[in-house]
Amino acid sequence: MAIRVLVWGENIHDRENEIVRGIYPDGMHGAIAKALNADPAIEATTATLEQPEHGLTVDRLARTDVLAWWGHRAHGDVSDEVVDRVAERVWQGMGLIVLHSGHFSKIFRKLMGTPCALKWREAGEKERIWVVNPSHPIAQGLEPSFVIPQTEMYGEPFVVPEPMETVFISWYDGGEVFRSGLTFQRGGGRIFYFSPGHEVYPIYHDKNVQQVIKNAVKWAANPAPAWTTVAVAANVPTERAPEPLSQRGPSLHQPGEEGFR
Amino acid sequence: MAIRVLVWGENIHDRENEIVRGIYPDGMHGAIAKALNADPAIEATTATLEQPEHGLTVDRLARTDVLAWWGHRAHGDVSDEVVDRVAERVWQGMGLIVLHSGHFSKIFRKLMGTPCALKWREAGEKERIWVVNPSHPIAQGLEPSFVIPQTEMYGEPFVVPEPMETVFISWYDGGEVFRSGLTFQRGGGRIFYFSPGHEVYPIYHDKNVQQVIKNAVKWAANPAPAWTTVAVAANVPTERAPEPLSQRGPSLHQPGEEGFR
Amino acid sequence: MAIRVLVWGENIHDRENEIVRGIYPDGMHGAIAKALNADPAIEATTATLEQPEHGLTVDRLARTDVLAWWGHRAHGDVSDEVVDRVAERVWQGMGLIVLHSGHFSKIFRKLMGTPCALKWREAGEKERIWVVNPSHPIAQGLEPSFVIPQTEMYGEPFVVPEPMETVFISWYDGGEVFRSGLTFQRGGGRIFYFSPGHEVYPIYHDKNVQQVIKNAVKWAANPAPAWTTVAVAANVPTERAPEPLSQRGPSLHQPGEEGFR
Amino acid sequence: MAIRVLVWGENIHDRENEIVRGIYPDGMHGAIAKALNADPAIEATTATLEQPEHGLTVDRLARTDVLAWWGHRAHGDVSDEVVDRVAERVWQGMGLIVLHSGHFSKIFRKLMGTPCALKWREAGEKERIWVVNPSHPIAQGLEPSFVIPQTEMYGEPFVVPEPMETVFISWYDGGEVFRSGLTFQRGGGRIFYFSPGHEVYPIYHDKNVQQVIKNAVKWAANPAPAWTTVAVAANVPTERAPEPLSQRGPSLHQPGEEGFR
Repeated sequence: MAIRVLVWGENIHDRENEIVRGIYPDGMHGAIAKALNADPAIEATTATLEQPEHGLTVDRLARTDVLAWWGHRAHGDVSDEVVDRVAERVWQGMGLIVLHSGHFSKIFRKLMGTPCALKWREAGEKERIWVVNPSHPIAQGLEPSFVIPQTEMYGEPFVVPEPMETVFISWYDGGEVFRSGLTFQRGGGRIFYFSPGHEVYPIYHDKNVQQVIKNAVKWAANPAPAWTTVAVAANVPTERAPEPLSQRGPSLHQPGEEGFR
Repeated sequence: MAIRVLVWGENIHDRENEIVRGIYPDGMHGAIAKALNADPAIEATTATLEQPEHGLTVDRLARTDVLAWWGHRAHGDVSDEVVDRVAERVWQGMGLIVLHSGHFSKIFRKLMGTPCALKWREAGEKERIWVVNPSHPIAQGLEPSFVIPQTEMYGEPFVVPEPMETVFISWYDGGEVFRSGLTFQRGGGRIFYFSPGHEVYPIYHDKNVQQVIKNAVKWAANPAPAWTTVAVAANVPTERAPEPLSQRGPSLHQPGEEGFR
Repeated sequence: MAIRVLVWGENIHDRENEIVRGIYPDGMHGAIAKALNADPAIEATTATLEQPEHGLTVDRLARTDVLAWWGHRAHGDVSDEVVDRVAERVWQGMGLIVLHSGHFSKIFRKLMGTPCALKWREAGEKERIWVVNPSHPIAQGLEPSFVIPQTEMYGEPFVVPEPMETVFISWYDGGEVFRSGLTFQRGGGRIFYFSPGHEVYPIYHDKNVQQVIKNAVKWAANPAPAWTTVAVAANVPTERAPEPLSQRGPSLHQPGEEGFR
Repeated sequence: MAIRVLVWGENIHDRENEIVRGIYPDGMHGAIAKALNADPAIEATTATLEQPEHGLTVDRLARTDVLAWWGHRAHGDVSDEVVDRVAERVWQGMGLIVLHSGHFSKIFRKLMGTPCALKWREAGEKERIWVVNPSHPIAQGLEPSFVIPQTEMYGEPFVVPEPMETVFISWYDGGEVFRSGLTFQRGGGRIFYFSPGHEVYPIYHDKNVQQVIKNAVKWAANPAPAWTTVAVAANVPTERAPEPLSQRGPSLHQPGEEGFR
């Protein structure tokens, strides 16, 4: 069965900015989904901010294996309810690929527990992306390094927790470096952050960038059944303890009572 | 200079529940602060939920090196504004020690990015806490294992990110296990979660538990100056790039413009 | 294409000890390989200590995707040359599953860089294995916990580096705990340590244990091409630097000279 | 009490190469020790390859809190016995700072369990070292980045396990990047790898480099008592199990017998 990918796009600059519209007539989300759909193992669709519930209904998320996220100008317009819903699905096992300026999205900051700040410069400079672990699934099919001719610089310190794996590190013309490909795990969900993707350059048309996103989709897809109890604090009553046990001493809760949250 | 610790207590069961009041006439926070103050290198004070801003004003937090957090019944009553403020201070370098049912506090869940769920049972059973790394600063002065005669069971899966270090693992009479001492780093702040501490048993009077908390305070205190820009996405204009650089191609932002958040 | 697994057994107690022989007429390696071969996606063969080069020739390892290792009494009899060869293949991308007393094998200690010591007791006591992350590939098809009725106790501290993931933690009748399922990455190779498997109990006939090993094989198999240069310190001459560069200042090496090792 | 640092130098190029001798009349180890001794909290001495037991006797190591290691041309001349001895002391809690070409030293490779390979170029190019976590103890007193005007390039992939923390990442004139400051933990010992330090440039006279090494010494010093049993697999006899236990079923070992290694 194909991996069901949902490419979410903010779809603002895609429509309103002439340069961006010229590069991505179907939006960045459209371009990414199209590139993914070239792989028969992937079935990609799109959703955007302006749709009801931002196109991220409970039902839609339930049928999504991996969600890719691009946002920039309107992070604050994404409803907290939807963000909580997406986080819950990630914890249950949905993969998440956070692209470029998505570092400041509500969903990424919620899952990281850090500010996710970084340095930036929009000079159209060159970025060279180095593969740190060439045998990592996300690095398959790439050269030891590849170049993005024009990029927005993102520089360290990138305030995220220590990643599970550092997959890519970027070098910039202007002298900075950046951990441009990082993996994280939250509950059952695998998360990949990938920094290239500034909207005024044709970065999502780059074949290496497309390869990375395709690889990341396959890496992030978790075939395990959804971990639906991931946020449940289950009481194990004394009489159902794995080892025989008798109640001793005082107790705060009445039998069968729910825990506090 | 002494380490300035602020022990925060919800202070509800401490006052309202007769058993808890009997064990902790000055509240759990009071007992913990008293134990910490026995060490001349530590200067511990307390704050509680019912105080204005929960006793966690900007100024108070600025003068705090390590915050210890105990909450249970009223996690939802802690204002989001105060939670954001505490998180910002942790990112800047303040240490945080999260105790027992604080696993479900807003601040811990915010910093972890996971549900922080676990299994639980209130049977007054025995807990044996094993030291996983005896040379870790938080394990100093302890035997290879120590016993808490009556405890609330907390069982795996404990839904947190992979920790920086697993310091303690607990064994329970009833057959469960739990990673009872875990370290994390978020920005400049070190975080230690320690599970023992159910309020109807005299756990914070236990000398081993007191030793752990004292050790954790010393481990979590970060003498570095506060990282005040930890959440700032600083623009580095082209003319101030570390290496000489000239502007190329189109740009989304006007010179000097702030980034989107 | 099926995953090519090589199950390596020391094959000493399997032949010499009457109890072990009774439980495993084809050796433990034989029992494990048979269980794996029940899965059409896996093609398992065996090799043993007494074979030439311990059955681990260069060619054989080149055709192995995942190596499972069981040793106990004769760790010292494994030749250093073969150990180095196995390590090199792991770095290149071969998966490695280290079973039970293999914690003290030369290959595991070499890959960990630590003593890999632990506590132990052979009392035939009960072990309860808890799943720490139910959505991990290695935990698929298991209940929240499962029991091994008679086991050798392995207790903390287990002196290994912090793992990439803690998949299982064990509870023992006698009061100890142990991180019984841990993952590591070394170069291109994924490593899984799994502690159950004492030879005088029929542990490798247990269906849960078989499920774990089968899952681990699938998790550890890395489809990436072998990383053949993983141990090579490649010189990048000045004239082939990614960015134009001219030689400045003194130099220790002559052009084209190899680096020191 | 001052931190007792032992700076170990290979002392070959220091004596035989005219350029190196000119920069470091007292050897690189001498220059590093001198810089460290400027801090009253540190007491640094030196040892070199040509001394009996390379100056690393059991007694000397027992009195060492942190060992700094510089080697390049003669890694193979360091005796395996001494390497094992140093590793044991690291596991027991001695800190280890591995400098520059020490990435290929026997001791570092033994503790990492990986090839520790990297790319290199000796062009005297510029290196810019970026601080990834400005609140880390090892980064104190530094600017967001600092420059080494002439350096040997070390490039990714650097084949080490995922570090505990990435403290520094380097940018090079020639287009490469490198994780130039990494922390690891092995048993009780903290390890810091720091890449700058090529012998034909005056890098150890640089005040930022000296600051990093001084910070690293303080970070790596573990005041805990030596973990002398770190490599011991202790048997816990049935009658001394923490919980009452009776022997069940067959057994491989006789009571009181040592485990196999």
